[in-house]
Amino acid sequence: MTEDRLKQIVEFCKLIDKEKFVQRRTYLSDGERLENDAEHAWHMAVMAILLSDYSNEKVDVLKVVSLLLVHDLVEIYAGDTFAYDEEGKKTQRDRELAAADRLYSQLPEDLAVKIRSLWDEFEEWGSPESKFAHTLDNFQPLLLQHASGGRAWREGGRRLSELLERNARSAEGSQALWEFARENFIQPEIEKGNLIDDID
Amino acid sequence: MTEDRLKQIVEFCKLIDKEKFVQRRTYLSDGERLENDAEHAWHMAVMAILLSDYSNEKVDVLKVVSLLLVHDLVEIYAGDTFAYDEEGKKTQRDRELAAADRLYSQLPEDLAVKIRSLWDEFEEWGSPESKFAHTLDNFQPLLLQHASGGRAWREGGRRLSELLERNARSAEGSQALWEFARENFIQPEIEKGNLIDDID
Repeated sequence: MTEDRLKQIVEFCKLIDKEKFVQRRTYLSDGERLENDAEHAWHMAVMAILLSDYSNEKVDVLKVVSLLLVHDLVEIYAGDTFAYDEEGKKTQRDRELAAADRLYSQLPEDLAVKIRSLWDEFEEWGSPESKFAHTLDNFQPLLLQHASGGRAWREGGRRLSELLERNARSAEGSQALWEFARENFIQPEIEKGNLIDDID
Repeated sequence: MTEDRLKQIVEFCKLIDKEKFVQRRTYLSDGERLENDAEHAWHMAVMAILLSDYSNEKVDVLKVVSLLLVHDLVEIYAGDTFAYDEEGKKTQRDRELAAADRLYSQLPEDLAVKIRSLWDEFEEWGSPESKFAHTLDNFQPLLLQHASGGRAWREGGRRLSELLERNARSAEGSQALWEFARENFIQPEIEKGNLIDDID
């Protein structure tokens, strides 16, 4: 291993500090400050360790953790695409692919392949680990939405139909977590009027 | 698994959101905002994946990641103890032990034991994984200190002797990373006058 190799990896470590500046649309549990991508990834990684028994399929927990830790790195260049931004979602895949090429090419090739393959696995939604990671990627913001008094839903005028569409595949990774979220995070916010029930 | 068990774990997942409010004394790479514990843990976990080849001893990378993800949870109750707060450090261990009891007792017993054992392993500084995790716990703030123009050192009037004392064991986990940090993060800040060289 050369000195140049280490320098290159450390430069990348410095670059990814920028993930802490990518703001999401979910308020933290205090209901005051919006979450950033790095905080989101950390929270889900710990939740993966605590909740893995609730995955539908048996998972390699630490693989789930790895997928979650790196899955949003592309947003350093592509930005966060809001779950309810229909225009943004049309170009999201292309923007993120370009971001991935730009980002990972700054790593030594073996590491670029390694991190890229984690991202690809997450995006493909095929493995049990990817499915469970996606469920957590939906479950964690639902937890925070409820903990923060439904503020972002209220402010955004969100409707239940939109939420269910966004969560169409949440049960694939964990039926138990999805049912828990419906009962404990979503239903109470409908009752409080923070989420509009537009389904007959 | 009962519904009560899941409720208990989810309550804990909500509680640990508070780690995002525990502020550290290191500026992010923009030199403007201080880092929080959750961001710090995420950053190091990704760095463990990228830098594990530089550990002195062979490590189970994902074990290192797990240690790093949970090692600061006790600070939700104990607060961050500043590395140069000599008074605070005298009571740190007792405060953190009390915090650990209070925190982990809120989990189902099997998970409490699991998370506690990860924290104990980190604190004991015995395993190759713990040593490498500690090195990253020192290396990552050095990277940010340099990236942020040495602001926190300059503002705090920090001296090299303090820094070397704080890093007395950094080389135990990775000689390569410690040498890299001395040459690329510490020495340039001495030359710029942001760190006082008080060693003859």
